[in-house]
Amino acid sequence: MDNNIRKKERGMDARKWLKGLAIACGVMMAGAVHANLSTVPDETYKALNLDRSKATPKETYDALVKRYKDPAQGAGRGTMAEYWEPIPYSMYLDPTTFYKSPSSVKEVVTRQECVECHSDESPVWVQAWKRSTHANLDEVRKLKPEDAKYYKKEKLEEVENNLRSLGKLGAKENLKEVGCIDCHVEINTKKKADHTKDIRMPTADACGTCHLREFAERESERDTMIFPNGQWPEGRPSHALDWKANIETTVWAAMPQREVAEGCSMCHYNQNKCDGCHTRHEFSAAESRKPEACATCHSGVDHNNWEAYSMSKHGKVTAMMGDKWNWDVPLKDAFEKGGQSAPTCASCHMEYEGEYAHNMVRKVRWANYPFVPGVAENITSEWSEKRLDSWAATCSQCHSERFARTYLELMDKGTLEGLAKYQEAHDIVKKLYDEGLLTGQKTNRPAPPAPDKPGFGQFTQLFWSKGNNPASMELKVLEMAENDLAKMHVGFAHVNPGGWTYTEGWGPMNRAYVEIQDEHTRLREMLTLQERVNKLEGSKTSLLDLNSNSEKISLGGLGGGLLLAGTLALIGWRKRKQNKA
Amino acid sequence: MDNNIRKKERGMDARKWLKGLAIACGVMMAGAVHANLSTVPDETYKALNLDRSKATPKETYDALVKRYKDPAQGAGRGTMAEYWEPIPYSMYLDPTTFYKSPSSVKEVVTRQECVECHSDESPVWVQAWKRSTHANLDEVRKLKPEDAKYYKKEKLEEVENNLRSLGKLGAKENLKEVGCIDCHVEINTKKKADHTKDIRMPTADACGTCHLREFAERESERDTMIFPNGQWPEGRPSHALDWKANIETTVWAAMPQREVAEGCSMCHYNQNKCDGCHTRHEFSAAESRKPEACATCHSGVDHNNWEAYSMSKHGKVTAMMGDKWNWDVPLKDAFEKGGQSAPTCASCHMEYEGEYAHNMVRKVRWANYPFVPGVAENITSEWSEKRLDSWAATCSQCHSERFARTYLELMDKGTLEGLAKYQEAHDIVKKLYDEGLLTGQKTNRPAPPAPDKPGFGQFTQLFWSKGNNPASMELKVLEMAENDLAKMHVGFAHVNPGGWTYTEGWGPMNRAYVEIQDEHTRLREMLTLQERVNKLEGSKTSLLDLNSNSEKISLGGLGGGLLLAGTLALIGWRKRKQNKA
Amino acid sequence: MDNNIRKKERGMDARKWLKGLAIACGVMMAGAVHANLSTVPDETYKALNLDRSKATPKETYDALVKRYKDPAQGAGRGTMAEYWEPIPYSMYLDPTTFYKSPSSVKEVVTRQECVECHSDESPVWVQAWKRSTHANLDEVRKLKPEDAKYYKKEKLEEVENNLRSLGKLGAKENLKEVGCIDCHVEINTKKKADHTKDIRMPTADACGTCHLREFAERESERDTMIFPNGQWPEGRPSHALDWKANIETTVWAAMPQREVAEGCSMCHYNQNKCDGCHTRHEFSAAESRKPEACATCHSGVDHNNWEAYSMSKHGKVTAMMGDKWNWDVPLKDAFEKGGQSAPTCASCHMEYEGEYAHNMVRKVRWANYPFVPGVAENITSEWSEKRLDSWAATCSQCHSERFARTYLELMDKGTLEGLAKYQEAHDIVKKLYDEGLLTGQKTNRPAPPAPDKPGFGQFTQLFWSKGNNPASMELKVLEMAENDLAKMHVGFAHVNPGGWTYTEGWGPMNRAYVEIQDEHTRLREMLTLQERVNKLEGSKTSLLDLNSNSEKISLGGLGGGLLLAGTLALIGWRKRKQNKA
Repeated sequence: MDNNIRKKERGMDARKWLKGLAIACGVMMAGAVHANLSTVPDETYKALNLDRSKATPKETYDALVKRYKDPAQGAGRGTMAEYWEPIPYSMYLDPTTFYKSPSSVKEVVTRQECVECHSDESPVWVQAWKRSTHANLDEVRKLKPEDAKYYKKEKLEEVENNLRSLGKLGAKENLKEVGCIDCHVEINTKKKADHTKDIRMPTADACGTCHLREFAERESERDTMIFPNGQWPEGRPSHALDWKANIETTVWAAMPQREVAEGCSMCHYNQNKCDGCHTRHEFSAAESRKPEACATCHSGVDHNNWEAYSMSKHGKVTAMMGDKWNWDVPLKDAFEKGGQSAPTCASCHMEYEGEYAHNMVRKVRWANYPFVPGVAENITSEWSEKRLDSWAATCSQCHSERFARTYLELMDKGTLEGLAKYQEAHDIVKKLYDEGLLTGQKTNRPAPPAPDKPGFGQFTQLFWSKGNNPASMELKVLEMAENDLAKMHVGFAHVNPGGWTYTEGWGPMNRAYVEIQDEHTRLREMLTLQERVNKLEGSKTSLLDLNSNSEKISLGGLGGGLLLAGTLALIGWRKRKQNKA
Repeated sequence: MDNNIRKKERGMDARKWLKGLAIACGVMMAGAVHANLSTVPDETYKALNLDRSKATPKETYDALVKRYKDPAQGAGRGTMAEYWEPIPYSMYLDPTTFYKSPSSVKEVVTRQECVECHSDESPVWVQAWKRSTHANLDEVRKLKPEDAKYYKKEKLEEVENNLRSLGKLGAKENLKEVGCIDCHVEINTKKKADHTKDIRMPTADACGTCHLREFAERESERDTMIFPNGQWPEGRPSHALDWKANIETTVWAAMPQREVAEGCSMCHYNQNKCDGCHTRHEFSAAESRKPEACATCHSGVDHNNWEAYSMSKHGKVTAMMGDKWNWDVPLKDAFEKGGQSAPTCASCHMEYEGEYAHNMVRKVRWANYPFVPGVAENITSEWSEKRLDSWAATCSQCHSERFARTYLELMDKGTLEGLAKYQEAHDIVKKLYDEGLLTGQKTNRPAPPAPDKPGFGQFTQLFWSKGNNPASMELKVLEMAENDLAKMHVGFAHVNPGGWTYTEGWGPMNRAYVEIQDEHTRLREMLTLQERVNKLEGSKTSLLDLNSNSEKISLGGLGGGLLLAGTLALIGWRKRKQNKA
Repeated sequence: MDNNIRKKERGMDARKWLKGLAIACGVMMAGAVHANLSTVPDETYKALNLDRSKATPKETYDALVKRYKDPAQGAGRGTMAEYWEPIPYSMYLDPTTFYKSPSSVKEVVTRQECVECHSDESPVWVQAWKRSTHANLDEVRKLKPEDAKYYKKEKLEEVENNLRSLGKLGAKENLKEVGCIDCHVEINTKKKADHTKDIRMPTADACGTCHLREFAERESERDTMIFPNGQWPEGRPSHALDWKANIETTVWAAMPQREVAEGCSMCHYNQNKCDGCHTRHEFSAAESRKPEACATCHSGVDHNNWEAYSMSKHGKVTAMMGDKWNWDVPLKDAFEKGGQSAPTCASCHMEYEGEYAHNMVRKVRWANYPFVPGVAENITSEWSEKRLDSWAATCSQCHSERFARTYLELMDKGTLEGLAKYQEAHDIVKKLYDEGLLTGQKTNRPAPPAPDKPGFGQFTQLFWSKGNNPASMELKVLEMAENDLAKMHVGFAHVNPGGWTYTEGWGPMNRAYVEIQDEHTRLREMLTLQERVNKLEGSKTSLLDLNSNSEKISLGGLGGGLLLAGTLALIGWRKRKQNKA
């Protein structure tokens, strides 16, 4: 559709055609210039079948976009599309699939008219944009090398080089501004826009037109987040495929409560858009470097990264001293030139071997969820040890390497201790399920809606329930894994002792264990009593069928220990492994 | 008492008499000036039987104060006064009713002596006041139009006009300062104060003497917070009647633990005083505009507005960028002149159709508590749709109207999804109660203390318990409504997806539902077994009387769905509706 | 070892010998100067058998260090050392006991070489240090009296006086800087350091070499935190003995999960080191004055001081206005000269009778844990009333004394109300334990690992569990005491009404009470039914032995009230009293 519009407009506007010619010349001249994206990992070049030393911006962009838009590689509605319907708001979460240009506004407007009208219609958009770098490119061109933001001048040159390669900017043309029409229609090549046909919600590839490096960096998460034995699906967990992770989760597709489900999508949309971290329309880089930029999504009962960090000494120093730091310097200069004295999310997670990039997953080892089958066993693998070394280097900016390594060892071992505690509780409940003894299991356990299927301890049960599906104990042990153990690891990982010992992690897991053991014992006592009444009645009509309970009553006391070696019997979790990131 | 003192003093002080005469002249001259309170809604003028185009400050003030002090309209100890006693600290929460001038300090002191002595006695009071606008009125008079605080100059002129109308300031007299004696005794007309007789704690009407507009705005909440079918009592929930809401709650009056109960009063005192938002004695307007000013009260398990907002992108942008914003500008200029780039509590809740006022309730539709009978049914009424339109206009300052409306639709529908989940759990427990089957219901369910009365699932049970009143399941479903569902809605309303999907709201409600279903099934199994033993004994002596459990055991699987249309069977909640705001 | 090295070096370096002589002269000259530590309480001079009017810095320091390093007085591995092993990271928590100089680095380096090499090795250390006062002593010497930091000049003179007394600085020598070698080897007297032998982790006595006053202040917590009847062990709870409190807790020593246990140590190390509050290597005094400096440790489920404060009006004013305050002024000037308008942790807890010191416990009355036997009974004692008076004086900086006293009364009475609610629930569960009726008590209650011993409701059970030890009800009532009641008191103490009424404290205690009563009733019903089946079987083989349940079934309704007078039957807690601070 976009192409048709462009053809029509060219037909109508001779100057545009001349400009197109100039741009084409620019492209030819720039054709030999390769993109030189040093911060993009080799894995991505390999995956895209590109030669790092030669690929032009256009070649790089085209290869990235082809994959980005490919439904077979995670774009769009996914394989469970038949089970769910979007709601009206969904168009803002997956614009490529659901967005429609507004039909209520008929105006066909120029660049300047956008600004004028929206100064009344949605004034804060315009105010924020006017403060942005996008609206002040000439200011950027005037920056002196001693200015903290000088790197933006180089960035602008890189952007213009990208645009020339893509045929969006003439060889000697400078980009004057990035205004409404540039992002919401097309960069630098449109004079007018028709609201009803041209307006788009910018997706990541739209941002990537200019910000090719950053686009390539974030897309590189697909290539660097690959567990050695398929513990997680390829490219996950990551921002680059978080939408796929969302819509390919059975409970998300199955839930009739679409507005609740879209709560997941409110964070799981980084695959589609960049404004989760770069708040529109000021797009302040300083803002996106602050830890709060990550907090809205990386928080809560299942991955309390923000809470763990912000209550740690690291986070508290940032809270206390951060207003003295210069957040305008790029991440690589944050400590030395910015005066930063404690780590932020970005300074640890965007760093890899001394460089900073929009790839947060190159050092991932535990992936927040230690119970996922194969993750714990992998933690001493060569793959994982290499990543541990990278972490040790990260921590060694501020600590001795010995300090870093002893702490990282503490983290790994402590996480395994939590896993073992969980495992013991899990086995008790799993055995009850296998025996058919969970509350209501034989009488009142409706199947979940499609595409979900019945099973034990599924991720689904955190959000869907009916009758006695799931049983209370079953949900409790599921939450031990998904929430308490995850938080315990996250507490370790963010150096928050209350996060793994007392308030979160071990304390809550101890409580869950106690409740599961208690309920287990009471359930067995009830079964025993039912059996005795059966015998008194001389009947065989009891709902529950259990003999010789006295032998089984102490089962809760077995198990446990470190049952990790070899085959972690976490069969019940496999479903999640396939469906969720 | 105040009047007697004034008479005596006049008898002693001829100059004062002359000044009184001058003031009286000022009043006469100013008599024709009407108050011109454009930000006070028509509803209030109508309720007070005042003509907006003519009412003088004095007429407006007198009408407001008459209602404000009327016990029949919410002032003072209320209708349950016989059941509770104040504690010593209560004098600071309802000064009109309980405050006594200090008997331990005998000094009769001048304006200047207050400051001198308290610079030693309570130095931070004095330091804060010295920084306040109250102590620096001449600075305000010097402000230039380009100053962010220039509006304060106009405000001061309005204040002086009010005082002249009230006979507290001469026609040509300027207010020199607002010092201790002005608020704690009487504005501008006292030379000396006797600690043992004259000292008062300033209530809202004291602040309103000068700040008539703000007093009228906040009192207008009584007139604009009126649900169409009495879903809530008139004027509630609001700040203007929050004290009444407190003391007319049966459990508050009934609780023997008065110090615990006064915890409620620590927030529910805005009806009586203004310093909940305007911290004494600096009374910084910039401070009261910040979202943290609302946080101490609007937070916690039953209405986590602060948590939901502060963890949302809106709140996080404020946390990250707020230190660059100019908080000294008035709310109407916050975005454009103050550089604000995300909403605060004040910028959304104090706004109505483009104007800002001390009325936070003109757009209230859900009132935090979706389970309150009639609220959900009302959400598509004309009354509610009009308020929805006002919200859409509010959001459209920063978003497109389409974005705003699709999100607001998401919020409404999602809240109803939560309500339906709660309803299904509620019906299970209510049925057990109707059958007399809740734990201990027939053997160990003491009545609550007066004025509370026995009943199912009452607000009371959140704070009072004895024996098996309430039963565990009963409290759990009560908390689903009062806490989890409330938080779910608040999460939606503050655009915090973790607040409605996972961490708060749906996740916890799913858990509560599972536990209720589980306990229900186990209870029915126990009853079945008891019945079988009864039969074996040939006896009829079982405490619990239940036949044919096998038919009822799957009850948990029924109900649910969207049972909202028509008559929401929330009979158990009606008591709360009458008693709490 | 250190001494041997020094002797060798002297043998090798004549200039050093001469310097040593000069220092010795300095000591002799300075010998008559006494330390003059006005902020150190008399109790400490008495405990150390020192004459306040005469003791030199050296005498004071030596006496303090002798006690500080004495295993019989809390240093080192403690009395349960045989039960636990350190992990590699432990060396950073108790360096005196576990730290080893790094064997991997062979360099013997000068003061300057430390800086050069670590600018590459661990650059942020060096950057932070370069911003510190330690690296800029000459800047301090230039401060003018009108400068907010002028007090640092006097502090530096005091430090130099201390060093002269200790023979570490010549009589006329000025301290040039405090660099790596000064803290990590020895102050001012080393030219070179051998990584493999000389490097130490600075413990509090190392900091105390220069900062004698602060060292003495913090050590004074041992002498001023002594409950009148041994409610807590002498000197506890305090920072000065928090390591001892940690390692002498049986569950800490008993837990096989050492990495989890070291989570406790991550806060309980202030006895050993100063960097819990004074973040290395900038050691910003302004930072350590901010409330966030205390937050990482003083937060969480068992002592949510930070949460209670930061959500109170006090904390919110600090959050809103703190960026305008001058945190560089010393605490005594914070309100008047710093512009502070709300209390911080430091301004209330480091203050005592108008002076500020590194002793946070001189006004302790409740010690966070109202259930500890004897604490509640003591709250109206003369000892406690004197401390209450000190609190009233603290609060009276910003409030009237009457306001302060009525609020403190509210706090005390409210805390007792919470204690009574807890007590009633406790008695129900304790009775079940005494009857042997807790879930699995007779069949599946393994003993805890040594040095722990079996018992009811022990602190241990918060972190250790196996089979049905503890029972679910037992853990619940334990958490009522350790967590909910503690948080309720902390809510009162930090003026956070949601902290004692609804969200924390009373609300959760009410919930726990209801669940305990419910489970109690159901357990009795089960026992009754088992008994009936026993009779039907004519057998005596039931696991549980209970007659005449019908009389006992309403036990839950008894007890309660204010059972505090005389003998609080909290026998189960005594173990904790001995073991935990």
